[in-house]
Amino acid sequence: MAAEIVNPRSDSNTGADAGSAPDDAFDPAFALHRGGKMAIQATVPVRDKDDLSLAYTPGVAKVCSAIAEQPELVHDYTWKSQVVAVVTDGTAVLGLGDIGPEASLPVMEGKAILFKQFGGVDAVPIALATTDTDEIIETVVRMAPSFGGVNLEDISAPRCFEIERRLQERLDIPVFHDDQHGTAVVTLAALRNAAKLTDRSLGQLRAVISGAGAAGVAIAKILIEAGIGDVAVCDRKGVVSTDRSDLTDVKREVAGFTNKGRLTGSLEDALDGADVFIGVSGGTVPEEAVAKMAKDSLIFAMANPTPEIHPDVAHKYAAVVATGRSDFPNQINNVLAFPGIFAGAMQVRASRITEGMKLAAAEALAAVVADELSADRVIPSPFDERVAPAVTAAVAAAARAEGVARR
Amino acid sequence: MAAEIVNPRSDSNTGADAGSAPDDAFDPAFALHRGGKMAIQATVPVRDKDDLSLAYTPGVAKVCSAIAEQPELVHDYTWKSQVVAVVTDGTAVLGLGDIGPEASLPVMEGKAILFKQFGGVDAVPIALATTDTDEIIETVVRMAPSFGGVNLEDISAPRCFEIERRLQERLDIPVFHDDQHGTAVVTLAALRNAAKLTDRSLGQLRAVISGAGAAGVAIAKILIEAGIGDVAVCDRKGVVSTDRSDLTDVKREVAGFTNKGRLTGSLEDALDGADVFIGVSGGTVPEEAVAKMAKDSLIFAMANPTPEIHPDVAHKYAAVVATGRSDFPNQINNVLAFPGIFAGAMQVRASRITEGMKLAAAEALAAVVADELSADRVIPSPFDERVAPAVTAAVAAAARAEGVARR
Repeated sequence: MAAEIVNPRSDSNTGADAGSAPDDAFDPAFALHRGGKMAIQATVPVRDKDDLSLAYTPGVAKVCSAIAEQPELVHDYTWKSQVVAVVTDGTAVLGLGDIGPEASLPVMEGKAILFKQFGGVDAVPIALATTDTDEIIETVVRMAPSFGGVNLEDISAPRCFEIERRLQERLDIPVFHDDQHGTAVVTLAALRNAAKLTDRSLGQLRAVISGAGAAGVAIAKILIEAGIGDVAVCDRKGVVSTDRSDLTDVKREVAGFTNKGRLTGSLEDALDGADVFIGVSGGTVPEEAVAKMAKDSLIFAMANPTPEIHPDVAHKYAAVVATGRSDFPNQINNVLAFPGIFAGAMQVRASRITEGMKLAAAEALAAVVADELSADRVIPSPFDERVAPAVTAAVAAAARAEGVARR
Repeated sequence: MAAEIVNPRSDSNTGADAGSAPDDAFDPAFALHRGGKMAIQATVPVRDKDDLSLAYTPGVAKVCSAIAEQPELVHDYTWKSQVVAVVTDGTAVLGLGDIGPEASLPVMEGKAILFKQFGGVDAVPIALATTDTDEIIETVVRMAPSFGGVNLEDISAPRCFEIERRLQERLDIPVFHDDQHGTAVVTLAALRNAAKLTDRSLGQLRAVISGAGAAGVAIAKILIEAGIGDVAVCDRKGVVSTDRSDLTDVKREVAGFTNKGRLTGSLEDALDGADVFIGVSGGTVPEEAVAKMAKDSLIFAMANPTPEIHPDVAHKYAAVVATGRSDFPNQINNVLAFPGIFAGAMQVRASRITEGMKLAAAEALAAVVADELSADRVIPSPFDERVAPAVTAAVAAAARAEGVARR
């Protein structure tokens, strides 16, 4: 369907409160967003009295009664098992920060259509008018009967960690904070391939992560589970280490399970001799620091829209360079992971998304590249049609292996 | 799309918790419901990098920023203004009663596809895991940024009254309990035409309503607003009158604004000489009681699936008979009202659905019958394509006239 170019000013004069339109009314992004990006579709016919009496009263009553007697049947006879709630509080939206629930909706709708397009998963944006941890948890628990999974999105750290943990404790459907785990899965997949390309195992690599927010913490965790040699996480004050007295609970935990080498000091200090740089901070890294990294370094400068170091500069030193941008090679894009992860989990009605399922997703994603592997191709394109089926199958199999599948 | 006959047993052996299927696995209602009745559809393309950078990052960021600056723009650039939350707690589902949120989902999905099919309105089922009034209200308030309207459904009385009132006080989008007002609007439309057919004005009619739940109370209110001569509401103990000491708050209120004739006693006593019977109780009415009604009586026996009195018996005494069933003439079906009411309200971004908008909906609905009016046709068929546009236009115009429209 082609996007029609519509001038948003066209109905700005129809009501006192309607608001005036943005200055860049002819911007194609505004034109595309007019009226939203999604709709509901009936998948059964309601053409006549007979259809109506099957899809609605009186026919629907026996389906309701059957579910009341056997609650598991809700997965068979409703869309529950194929629909994800995309839940946000609007506090950490893209690079824009805390812009509130309404302003976050275009991103949540975008996420929803990516779920559909790439994973065949239905998704509904739920932007909440609260930023209170307990209230967010209660609200999601109460709406959970209608959904087969919960994708947490753009909720700021450190609340995002507690919200995800407590929700997963209370719900028997997958709860997944994509800003953490989606990013971590795709990063691990790319790193696996980059290591392979440079003839090293993950165990031979020392990594430095810049950024101790949702993505940084999750990447550190998955790298350790995958067997990285060592990883240090840096925040604005330098290496997150047990020596520091200024750490939040989450960072204290990170200090405990990372940094076997007991590094201290600045990000630049940590990069000296490191094999891998992973940037999820939005800050910048000077060329001199990158120059001091080990030979054949792997540089993932994923800040958007401005990478921590420009790829052209990084290439002077690194064997592999990845970014978060679509206009450079090796884009670390969450859309490579979340549609297939949810599709696989929901296909087998998994009660949660385990570490093993995330590792399996990363392996499957890395494997799609296969013999196309090169320095400019350590990760597939988001539009590679092999990706979602591969991730879906791997995640479903891992869920069964880990005993969290219910079919 | 034809419904495929699927045996729900087919995957009952794939997991320990998957549950066995109902005995009537070959029932067409089960076959039709397999996998649910609805899906999400992207309305913009995501075929390539360029599409992705407009519909998602980085293009979406400027749309988010514009909404953050001018909150009203959320109505222009997201699906908010075209999507309704169909909210239930599963306590009063069809004739089944309190079957819980999961078991209510097939009805909520049915409602959602009727919204789409008949009104072009997107709707999302939200079945809540709480029956606590305060918790329901808080939950809906918190999710409201994502929706342009709230359709409350199958929430038991008397909580439904308080929930609707308090939600509407707190939200600036329409909150509408369809079991109350949808039923009331269609009943009034049919009664207007039945009165016209028998050459009477509403002011000349005395009505008796059997049932003091959501529908009965709302019908009493709208009939009074429309100028009915008198109306008495009966519960299981008889006429709801100010003489009684056993009334709930809501029934005490009903006693205050109904029953000018100061009737007391049983439903049968009240029917003696009455012009109109409206049954929304699920009880039965003996033929003798109906026989004592006034000449040219109008009998709306709307209990489902068993009308309070069989239409064949009612016809011995009444000038017009209506039911809630599709297999008799004059079906009082809410689908004649709610799609157009929400479509009209959301078209003009109404902040609420006023009494005037409901009266306008009933008038427009009655007017569709026009010169086809007969004893077997006091209300249009649900599949009459003139209905939704007529109701939509009338409701939008009434919203503007009443000053609740925002465009």
